[in-house]
Amino acid sequence: MITLTVELAERSYPILIGSGLLGRPDVLGPYLKNRDVLVITNDRVGPIYLEPLKAMLGDRRIQTVIVPDGEANKNMATLESVLDGLVAAHYGRDCVVVTLGGGVIGDIGGFAAAVYQRGVDFVQVPTTLLAQVDSAVGGKTGVNHPGGKNLIGAFHQPRCVLADTDTLRTLPDRQLNAGLAEVVKYGLIADAELFVWLEHQAENLLRRDPGALHHAIRRSCEIKAAIVAEDERERGNRALLNLGHTFGHAIERCAGYGEWLHGEAVSAGMCMAADLSERLGLLHAGEPRRLRTLLDRLELPITPPQVDPREFLDAMSMDKKVLAGQIRLVLLREIGSAKVMADYPAHELLDLLREQFMT
Amino acid sequence: MITLTVELAERSYPILIGSGLLGRPDVLGPYLKNRDVLVITNDRVGPIYLEPLKAMLGDRRIQTVIVPDGEANKNMATLESVLDGLVAAHYGRDCVVVTLGGGVIGDIGGFAAAVYQRGVDFVQVPTTLLAQVDSAVGGKTGVNHPGGKNLIGAFHQPRCVLADTDTLRTLPDRQLNAGLAEVVKYGLIADAELFVWLEHQAENLLRRDPGALHHAIRRSCEIKAAIVAEDERERGNRALLNLGHTFGHAIERCAGYGEWLHGEAVSAGMCMAADLSERLGLLHAGEPRRLRTLLDRLELPITPPQVDPREFLDAMSMDKKVLAGQIRLVLLREIGSAKVMADYPAHELLDLLREQFMT
Repeated sequence: MITLTVELAERSYPILIGSGLLGRPDVLGPYLKNRDVLVITNDRVGPIYLEPLKAMLGDRRIQTVIVPDGEANKNMATLESVLDGLVAAHYGRDCVVVTLGGGVIGDIGGFAAAVYQRGVDFVQVPTTLLAQVDSAVGGKTGVNHPGGKNLIGAFHQPRCVLADTDTLRTLPDRQLNAGLAEVVKYGLIADAELFVWLEHQAENLLRRDPGALHHAIRRSCEIKAAIVAEDERERGNRALLNLGHTFGHAIERCAGYGEWLHGEAVSAGMCMAADLSERLGLLHAGEPRRLRTLLDRLELPITPPQVDPREFLDAMSMDKKVLAGQIRLVLLREIGSAKVMADYPAHELLDLLREQFMT
Repeated sequence: MITLTVELAERSYPILIGSGLLGRPDVLGPYLKNRDVLVITNDRVGPIYLEPLKAMLGDRRIQTVIVPDGEANKNMATLESVLDGLVAAHYGRDCVVVTLGGGVIGDIGGFAAAVYQRGVDFVQVPTTLLAQVDSAVGGKTGVNHPGGKNLIGAFHQPRCVLADTDTLRTLPDRQLNAGLAEVVKYGLIADAELFVWLEHQAENLLRRDPGALHHAIRRSCEIKAAIVAEDERERGNRALLNLGHTFGHAIERCAGYGEWLHGEAVSAGMCMAADLSERLGLLHAGEPRRLRTLLDRLELPITPPQVDPREFLDAMSMDKKVLAGQIRLVLLREIGSAKVMADYPAHELLDLLREQFMT
């Protein structure tokens, strides 16, 4: 087991990464002083990992809320069902919410913890690659609104993140690949060496080589922890983590929430961001193709679904990265370096969309 | 106009108190840099004060959400209607929510601002005495759950509080009196001199003497600002502000939300807290009677509604002040001094409830 730390003064917390952690009663003990526990999980993960998780929690009071799987359920109604569970258990401010599952579970459970009694503890136990490398770290919580992804939420840091890499064994291929898209993202925005490593390790990752997965998770968490420590509330560089996400959120929305996995949408979204970066003269010609080649080898989509360009632009403009009507985008300068831009010529984005959706 | 400051480092903000402030375009300008404004108000306050408020906002983009009046509507459904308004307006992270109304409007609007896009600005424009002396200051936001008051919410400080004392002219008597209950509370927990002043000014306050109201608001805000500056997240002394509130919330719940005004419930709740304090030997005999005399002169209720003592105890135990099953209460040592206690003999509370509900 390795332990990384997200350095946030009195809100600092560890990310525990390793094999065989679930079920070990000694692992969570130091970070879980709470007597009353509410576990939120879904109907796919719960049957496999709920018992090992409970075994770790010892003689604490445990209540469980099981929600339906999938992004389509990441909404206010599901949030309310978690809050109802907390109220029904008569839990006080000293309880803890434990999220057992992927990004959807972590986002809903973390948001419930953020607003129950104006904030209670929570612990992330991510069981998907995407959650282990990205969404479980950094304290972004929330639910979707029919008008846009993650439009309702809170910054609320967990007390601890426990990533048991063994849980990836039961992960469907499609979910595994979706998680790899976020690993590629870290390479693109912050670490050219990681990108090259991914080009060498693509097949090992697809066949779930434990050493390769461990390295991918560790390096991703190191990069994310450093960025979050520097900019918890996304007033600056944290926005770089949104590379491909404004395009991706529009893809998710236009396709209907749940049709595309978040990581899949980010994959195609990163290609669009790279194309726009090239078009603006920021990124060398040829680099978008190199990116597409890697993502394609990782069995990820590299083109968006065909929709009307205006509909797509509307969906993009409901993304949170929009400030005062201008769509801010994360663009690439080179592989390993990105920046946030709002002052690009608006027609370049329109031209890109027309080109990509008229072919 | 006087300006007090809630000192919270980078989240510090002013409380502006005065006559004739609504409608003056110069007053809010320094604190409102936002172009996009969503005003939330209710169907009683809106028709009177929405136009003057809009006149202050100049050429900003203004959207309005009008919600039904009353505590019974302080729930997730109303919250969602405000969030829907923000999404429909396509507002980004740089918008501001302005709450125009009493405590219910401020709590819902502030909570919407806390969770829209993980937090946007908000400004409180309280139009009831209760909101001007208490709920608009300090950043507690939230909604009720069928299981208990304010069980869902967030700490989210406003950018500015604007209390125009002229708005009290249109306030129904019952609402005015309810606000005075919280002023009495400040005297009880922190300022014996204020309590004595209230004993002298009760009739002037009831007849809405502007000078008396101004003093009551100013002194209340000074006390609250100092307590919040010292303990924003209620880990210590801020809990003293809850004097009478655990009893009061149980009264509100048992009577059905909206039947008792919050301040009325706090009034009767403070009497119960004083009785228990006397019973425990903390407070001199005779002081509860002195409190009842003042509250009665302020035309406030001094006894709870008659319900089953067990039902009342259940309602109390769903209050947020409960930690690990033990009902923590704010109790009085003398007029002007209070403390939080959880280690009183449990039977004393039971005996008190049996006595008060069996007469």
